[in-house]
Amino acid sequence: MQMGMIGLGRMGGNMVKRLREDGHEIVGFDMNPESGRDVDSLEALVAALEAPRVVWVMVPAGKPTDSTVEQLGELLEPGDIVVDGGNSKYTEDREHAAALSEKGIGFLDCGVSGGVWGAERGYALMIGGSDKDYETVLPIFQSLKPEGEYGLVHAGPVGGGHFAKMVHNGIEYGMMQAFGEGFATMLRSEYVTNPAETMTSWRTGSVVASWLLDLLDNATKNDPELKSVPAVANESGEAKWMVEAALELGVPVPTTAAALWQRQTSRGGADDILRVVTALRAQFGGHVTKVDEIATH
Amino acid sequence: MQMGMIGLGRMGGNMVKRLREDGHEIVGFDMNPESGRDVDSLEALVAALEAPRVVWVMVPAGKPTDSTVEQLGELLEPGDIVVDGGNSKYTEDREHAAALSEKGIGFLDCGVSGGVWGAERGYALMIGGSDKDYETVLPIFQSLKPEGEYGLVHAGPVGGGHFAKMVHNGIEYGMMQAFGEGFATMLRSEYVTNPAETMTSWRTGSVVASWLLDLLDNATKNDPELKSVPAVANESGEAKWMVEAALELGVPVPTTAAALWQRQTSRGGADDILRVVTALRAQFGGHVTKVDEIATH
Amino acid sequence: MQMGMIGLGRMGGNMVKRLREDGHEIVGFDMNPESGRDVDSLEALVAALEAPRVVWVMVPAGKPTDSTVEQLGELLEPGDIVVDGGNSKYTEDREHAAALSEKGIGFLDCGVSGGVWGAERGYALMIGGSDKDYETVLPIFQSLKPEGEYGLVHAGPVGGGHFAKMVHNGIEYGMMQAFGEGFATMLRSEYVTNPAETMTSWRTGSVVASWLLDLLDNATKNDPELKSVPAVANESGEAKWMVEAALELGVPVPTTAAALWQRQTSRGGADDILRVVTALRAQFGGHVTKVDEIATH
Amino acid sequence: MQMGMIGLGRMGGNMVKRLREDGHEIVGFDMNPESGRDVDSLEALVAALEAPRVVWVMVPAGKPTDSTVEQLGELLEPGDIVVDGGNSKYTEDREHAAALSEKGIGFLDCGVSGGVWGAERGYALMIGGSDKDYETVLPIFQSLKPEGEYGLVHAGPVGGGHFAKMVHNGIEYGMMQAFGEGFATMLRSEYVTNPAETMTSWRTGSVVASWLLDLLDNATKNDPELKSVPAVANESGEAKWMVEAALELGVPVPTTAAALWQRQTSRGGADDILRVVTALRAQFGGHVTKVDEIATH
Repeated sequence: MQMGMIGLGRMGGNMVKRLREDGHEIVGFDMNPESGRDVDSLEALVAALEAPRVVWVMVPAGKPTDSTVEQLGELLEPGDIVVDGGNSKYTEDREHAAALSEKGIGFLDCGVSGGVWGAERGYALMIGGSDKDYETVLPIFQSLKPEGEYGLVHAGPVGGGHFAKMVHNGIEYGMMQAFGEGFATMLRSEYVTNPAETMTSWRTGSVVASWLLDLLDNATKNDPELKSVPAVANESGEAKWMVEAALELGVPVPTTAAALWQRQTSRGGADDILRVVTALRAQFGGHVTKVDEIATH
Repeated sequence: MQMGMIGLGRMGGNMVKRLREDGHEIVGFDMNPESGRDVDSLEALVAALEAPRVVWVMVPAGKPTDSTVEQLGELLEPGDIVVDGGNSKYTEDREHAAALSEKGIGFLDCGVSGGVWGAERGYALMIGGSDKDYETVLPIFQSLKPEGEYGLVHAGPVGGGHFAKMVHNGIEYGMMQAFGEGFATMLRSEYVTNPAETMTSWRTGSVVASWLLDLLDNATKNDPELKSVPAVANESGEAKWMVEAALELGVPVPTTAAALWQRQTSRGGADDILRVVTALRAQFGGHVTKVDEIATH
Repeated sequence: MQMGMIGLGRMGGNMVKRLREDGHEIVGFDMNPESGRDVDSLEALVAALEAPRVVWVMVPAGKPTDSTVEQLGELLEPGDIVVDGGNSKYTEDREHAAALSEKGIGFLDCGVSGGVWGAERGYALMIGGSDKDYETVLPIFQSLKPEGEYGLVHAGPVGGGHFAKMVHNGIEYGMMQAFGEGFATMLRSEYVTNPAETMTSWRTGSVVASWLLDLLDNATKNDPELKSVPAVANESGEAKWMVEAALELGVPVPTTAAALWQRQTSRGGADDILRVVTALRAQFGGHVTKVDEIATH
Repeated sequence: MQMGMIGLGRMGGNMVKRLREDGHEIVGFDMNPESGRDVDSLEALVAALEAPRVVWVMVPAGKPTDSTVEQLGELLEPGDIVVDGGNSKYTEDREHAAALSEKGIGFLDCGVSGGVWGAERGYALMIGGSDKDYETVLPIFQSLKPEGEYGLVHAGPVGGGHFAKMVHNGIEYGMMQAFGEGFATMLRSEYVTNPAETMTSWRTGSVVASWLLDLLDNATKNDPELKSVPAVANESGEAKWMVEAALELGVPVPTTAAALWQRQTSRGGADDILRVVTALRAQFGGHVTKVDEIATH
């Protein structure tokens, strides 16, 4: 089928390639003239598509997506559908859908997992929106998803796709932290001489066999103790949103939060906490933590 | 090769079957006369094997394993090897190995993952002990492990096999808790109408694809909200040991511990904590948590 | 000085009493005719005060406060000041202050700690708002606060009073949880025969001496093991807000969150997590947690 | 009464001073000739005391205490009593008591809180051991404890004193972490302009009023943001033991553990965890955390 794609970066570009290989007619637009775009404006994109149109937005969440959706609201016609395939928050989806709905334009939010491997393996897709809109765009989803029975779900109403992706990423945080805790414990122990080889051996036959473990095999091939990797980690936002959502829902999520906090701490988030602890220890016990002491610890 | 197997329960029995299918000559013993045992005593087991012997112990950790290893120390000869395939703690391995070593008997500890599926898929094996003993028993390990490159590792010296298995299970706790937190968050949310189908869709193409997710698909097929499953969970000991080991090594393991604590809490472990909290709230604020209030919350 | 008080419940009523004892002229209003109110409407309250007026709002956060502040915006005059002494969220303060500011009306938010003991001991007060408004209402704060150097702070701009109170309550959650963990650990141990007496002994001379420990002494006097107290705890919202605020600020707050989650778990929040864990264990290992097993554990 | 004191460091020396001021006859010994000791050997100490003797051991836990108790076992007579006032683990107490008991020598373990302030304010004491031994040494405890009703408890049998002190310190960790989390959250927020003054104001009238808050007032007087204090904290062992004990007892202690882990993390304990997380992110998403990026974050 025919579709417009806005945003031809690594994710959007790979998706267009995969869709075209499957026979779809994709009209691509990007702000960057060197992106290999087919048209040079949103107006031109809309003009190049036959109504009822489907336009996939694959740009950064927040202002870029807000602005794109707003402009599409001006340019599109009743019966057209906007798909937000970026990393918007589920609450933003509701706002976008409501604004478009006033003009008779449909909206689907699509959480996408698979990273740089998706181009080849297919992307796991989670969709939020109405049954009718979902059915219309289904041929596109079918081409983007991996082979087989899994990899695509109509998770719920508008917002459900990004809510599911948020939860997916929260779980991913927890899993990576769990693997990290295991690796670090073995690395410090005298009992296990080769933590990376040990974890790699679990790729088959073990209860923890998983794609992340497959990736860990790659990552440790030339650096079994990961000494070249910095001991800091950034965050992408979804885990924070998941903890917030769970707080509101009354669901404790200590594992997801612990993973997030370990990353925040690696970037200095707990420094002032430690200053209080060390200042108090000095007050009551004369225990002053000297940096020298630490360095040689 | 020839080997003795002590303990013909679900795990030991399945292993014997898998080993015999692969051409090994296994002499089996179990305390239970109806176990299908080949001999009716440890003495008979030892007598039935040609020196140098290999004897695999597959009985519950603690006293049963202690007692079996002690008896084998009396019955075996220098050059023989004992393999502990049960769930002993890594510190116990060192004691067992030291006692056997005085009599010239070798020792390997073998952590086994794979559960009831191992009989068919093969077991993931983690081995601790000397290179020499490992090489001797390798044909057995080769037959028990799954097809392919992975599923077997010589993790380190004596204790390393069970240490690795302990860490493996700690990671497993964290992963299951992470999946649980995601499922529970979606189940309470209005955004995702089918949490089980959503999670199942991640089996292919997603970053969290894993064997546990495959199993969750089975588990939720006829009970998508898992309402028939009790909201309590037992523990098997390894996660507790892992947290203890990590505490000693100075490695924070909040994810593993959170998973353990959620299970302990489900069995009443936090009840007295909550009594203190509620008693204090009543003292300073007149906030008394009444059970009635809770019930209707 | 003269002031209007809206809300004559336990907190508001006690405050009026304390203020009148200190010579202030308080005009009280409450929706409830049996509250001992001085006037029977907001209009009458405003009419009874001389400009520039100070009106203290002491009603539940959310709609009651929103509605009261909105009505006061209609009734008051430029130069008047509204004080919100309830439990509003700091973000709501900004909205209230902005709406009142358009009409030239000042706004202070005041976090209040001290519970039922405040009537006698004085209340710890945390104020947010401009220096000018703070100075105007200072005589009132002086009368409400405890004797001595401490118990009153101008914490910051509008919202700062409730932000500080939110953090105060988050800390309170963490402290109560810490005491609870210690009590529960001693209660299960064979080493300490009288946990309540042990904790009470720390009221003097120990590093953990605190008012909460004084209250624990009261609470355990006739029930040393707190067996009459239900093992469930409610939450009042502030700890949840604090965790959310800290998440946004990138500050890890595992202690505050753990305290909150223990309460949420006591009300069933983790049930679905445990169902996933137990369902998965049954899938891979045949470990089914039976409720009978648990009961006799 | 008469007593021997072994170990005249900061704690032991201050205690001797306090005891002598209260009229006790103390014979002091220390390995250090410049400690102001009364005798120059354990033998001389024992010789200088009239039977039945009481000897207080105030030396570092572990080998120094083990060795001292062992020597006292050789030198003392049936009916004498050893008091261990150091920071031994409760399990060590049982070993020491058992060894001494074989020779008819009594044993009490005494947890001591109060830090450098104890000399003046008195020490909070927690005692483990038999009623008979406790009664014998009671005059000493009475002189060391603070004025008033609290500050001394006979917590349980041998080991109970150090178990109680261990729990006390675990609670102390949790409380300090809670204060730290609150301080750090306010410091990063735009709402509270003076976190130290805000926290100090809680010293009176608030639910979190506590001695630690009094100490924080001291600590922040000349450095309100604690910028001169290093963002690292050591640990003294007791919180680790408490988490281990609670794990065995099945009591979740997330708050105590979170406080401990924050300190371990500040000394690099989580570095390898973060390396795994960042390595995996690079594998699946091309998210590489660059140190430069972090530095400017």
